[in-house]
Amino acid sequence: MDLAISLDFNNKYVPLHRQVYEELRKAILCGRLPAKHRVPSTRSLSQSLGISRTTVTISYEQLKSEGYIETLVGSGTFVCAQLPDDLLRSIPVEHVQKITRPQIQLSKYAHSLVEADVPGITEPLTTINFRYGRPAFDKFPMQIWHKLLSRHCSPVNSNWLDYSTDHKGYLPLRKAIVSYLSRSRAVKCDPDQVMILNGTQQALYLIMRLLIDTGDTMALEEPGYLSARRVFLSQGAKLLPINVDSEGLMVEELKQYTNESIKIVYVTPSHQFPTGSILSLPRRLELLAWTRQTGALIIEDDYDSEYRYGERPIPALQGLDESDSVLYVGTFSKVLFPSLRIGYLVLPKSLAPLFARAKWLNDRHLPLLEQYVLTDFIEEGHLERHIRKMRSHYDQCRQILVQALKEHFGERVKILGEKAGIHLMVKLQTPLSDEEIVQRAGNEWSGNASC
Amino acid sequence: MDLAISLDFNNKYVPLHRQVYEELRKAILCGRLPAKHRVPSTRSLSQSLGISRTTVTISYEQLKSEGYIETLVGSGTFVCAQLPDDLLRSIPVEHVQKITRPQIQLSKYAHSLVEADVPGITEPLTTINFRYGRPAFDKFPMQIWHKLLSRHCSPVNSNWLDYSTDHKGYLPLRKAIVSYLSRSRAVKCDPDQVMILNGTQQALYLIMRLLIDTGDTMALEEPGYLSARRVFLSQGAKLLPINVDSEGLMVEELKQYTNESIKIVYVTPSHQFPTGSILSLPRRLELLAWTRQTGALIIEDDYDSEYRYGERPIPALQGLDESDSVLYVGTFSKVLFPSLRIGYLVLPKSLAPLFARAKWLNDRHLPLLEQYVLTDFIEEGHLERHIRKMRSHYDQCRQILVQALKEHFGERVKILGEKAGIHLMVKLQTPLSDEEIVQRAGNEWSGNASC
Repeated sequence: MDLAISLDFNNKYVPLHRQVYEELRKAILCGRLPAKHRVPSTRSLSQSLGISRTTVTISYEQLKSEGYIETLVGSGTFVCAQLPDDLLRSIPVEHVQKITRPQIQLSKYAHSLVEADVPGITEPLTTINFRYGRPAFDKFPMQIWHKLLSRHCSPVNSNWLDYSTDHKGYLPLRKAIVSYLSRSRAVKCDPDQVMILNGTQQALYLIMRLLIDTGDTMALEEPGYLSARRVFLSQGAKLLPINVDSEGLMVEELKQYTNESIKIVYVTPSHQFPTGSILSLPRRLELLAWTRQTGALIIEDDYDSEYRYGERPIPALQGLDESDSVLYVGTFSKVLFPSLRIGYLVLPKSLAPLFARAKWLNDRHLPLLEQYVLTDFIEEGHLERHIRKMRSHYDQCRQILVQALKEHFGERVKILGEKAGIHLMVKLQTPLSDEEIVQRAGNEWSGNASC
Repeated sequence: MDLAISLDFNNKYVPLHRQVYEELRKAILCGRLPAKHRVPSTRSLSQSLGISRTTVTISYEQLKSEGYIETLVGSGTFVCAQLPDDLLRSIPVEHVQKITRPQIQLSKYAHSLVEADVPGITEPLTTINFRYGRPAFDKFPMQIWHKLLSRHCSPVNSNWLDYSTDHKGYLPLRKAIVSYLSRSRAVKCDPDQVMILNGTQQALYLIMRLLIDTGDTMALEEPGYLSARRVFLSQGAKLLPINVDSEGLMVEELKQYTNESIKIVYVTPSHQFPTGSILSLPRRLELLAWTRQTGALIIEDDYDSEYRYGERPIPALQGLDESDSVLYVGTFSKVLFPSLRIGYLVLPKSLAPLFARAKWLNDRHLPLLEQYVLTDFIEEGHLERHIRKMRSHYDQCRQILVQALKEHFGERVKILGEKAGIHLMVKLQTPLSDEEIVQRAGNEWSGNASC
């Protein structure tokens, strides 16, 4: 019989026996090999295809076990009779790879994402990577991290392999975070209020999901953190941008929206993103007082508060708040490394059970091994040691960059923000566009590099 | 002056200097220590509190750096004048720990979760843990896993510390999964269709979020997987339970709902949860044909398809589908370990970009170290070796359990399902309730144990 089988000998994903199997199966399902018809013997098919007989035999065994073909002793191998004929006929003939089907209907949320502006894969244009929010990876204490990984990843210690039954995250880690936040950020909470989440992103996502409906109003800093803005928009929030000056969010401006029912204000008080200003104490108190009056909530995104050079950090809004209005978001992405994907959310007590439920429905919990390792890392003092070391390192980096900018641009450069954080915002007095400046900097570097 | 400060000497989370700081700050904010008033000297306060002067000094330094108090040379330390008076007065007096605020308004989604039935922390009642879906952790090749972790977790190898820019997951892992699924499950896809997700749970959550709006109709197996049902309900889906028999989902029953616009059917075809039946080939073809006619999508949850004892597994619905109707969900929770939190979703090509965007907005990406390790684990053949080993182990366990059940219950026990999977469903002919049986089994065990 004439059985057209096309094999792709260069396909490294699909082995030949699987390809033979699939071609025969397709031939049966399309009716090219009708029920009760004889299929070629393994010998003849292997010869015609130029492949080993074993390969064909494996394919046939698979087809037999799945009920497509059967061997009748002494007669040969046949397509099974019991496949429902009408089903077979409902599949159109020959080489129709894909069958047209009604278009897939998306949810409202999905429609809002169709045009969503989500960053793609970006590679640095130049040899020096100036991307913001990127810790100095070569300074990460990999050996300590490896030692702690090895401690838990041993055959005698397999209790972390199972599902976690704690929806908020590994309890000893939550305790370690409470203690760390109390020491370093004056955050007041107990472990029950802490959720271990897959980074700041998940904290913002869950807050949106549980507290914002389409059309609800939110205020946020202008300029501000784009990734937060993206989550807010995707959830259908109406956004009120509030200007920022050298003391951070201009609370006066916020207070003027007396006709708006603002549900949430998103702020980065310890190091405004991207301008670098720090929300002053009077503004903090003013913001909290406004919150108490209006019933709004505050998302305090404390993404790199650990890095303040000189003075001690101003305590978190969360610690100043006496009215359960602050949702405090922190992350280990900046003090350790981003691909760890561990952040935390400190919640008003009344909201904690609800967030735990939402987290469970979303993805159950974070991997446990990293939570064990991080707990030890904090409890044994490595975290704070690392932060101290990095604080001095980033301070030096900042000084070198500031000095170089002043040296090369003189009066034409203005450094914005306080001495804090791991990024720097500058204003250049120049007629050039952003793109032109990046392009020129790239050229300059290539020029130097080839010297 | 009389300054009441209460310290908790047993509090292991909040050090004394922080407690002193907080008490003083509260006194200032409440107006007990008014602007421009003198605060006690460090010496006198340390004496009255019975703590070291250094501790008090640390507290004062913090308060100074934050602008609460200031030292005037030769005169002493005072509460700052520049704190806005009206703000201070807006905070009620004395020991009001929490200020009442308008109730927090929840989103519609949050309201749907308030009563959501999400499993809590469960401990086995007896010494033997019969919980379903729990792999044999003592058989996990921890040493190999540790070796692979160590390979990547070394100071010369820090490229995985950064954010991943690949929203779908680490590309080499997606390639390894494509190859594995093609070999073992006849799933046809390319790496672009694969999303690495935080377990089956996140796959189901994202599918719901992107394809289901409140009130949309879904069909699912009855009895079926409760955790899936919970996600569907939380998203406001209207659920149609479809009965299951020894050939799996009764597609005939599904076809009778001609007046319903069913958007998605959720099935566990390779080992129906919990009955253990396997969706027969005719039913598979019938289901796919129905899908093509109605435009419905199929969620194929292939949670433990690796464990089939005896015959080869029937290929996945995804591989039989020619009309882009199947969303294939798999997990490493059963073949490796649940706390790894890695699952995958194979999507119709048209949906992949949208899911990548939703994943990024949800939590960006999974931790990278585990993705590197898992890639090596698959590519170097450890995964399939481990599965072969475990298949024989679980087969033995199953036989022992079946034999014991038959021995002790004789005619009164009926074993349901095919020889597959890592759980077993039995029907006991008994007037006892579930709880009574569990209770008796526990007593029996304790009785034996004390012999």
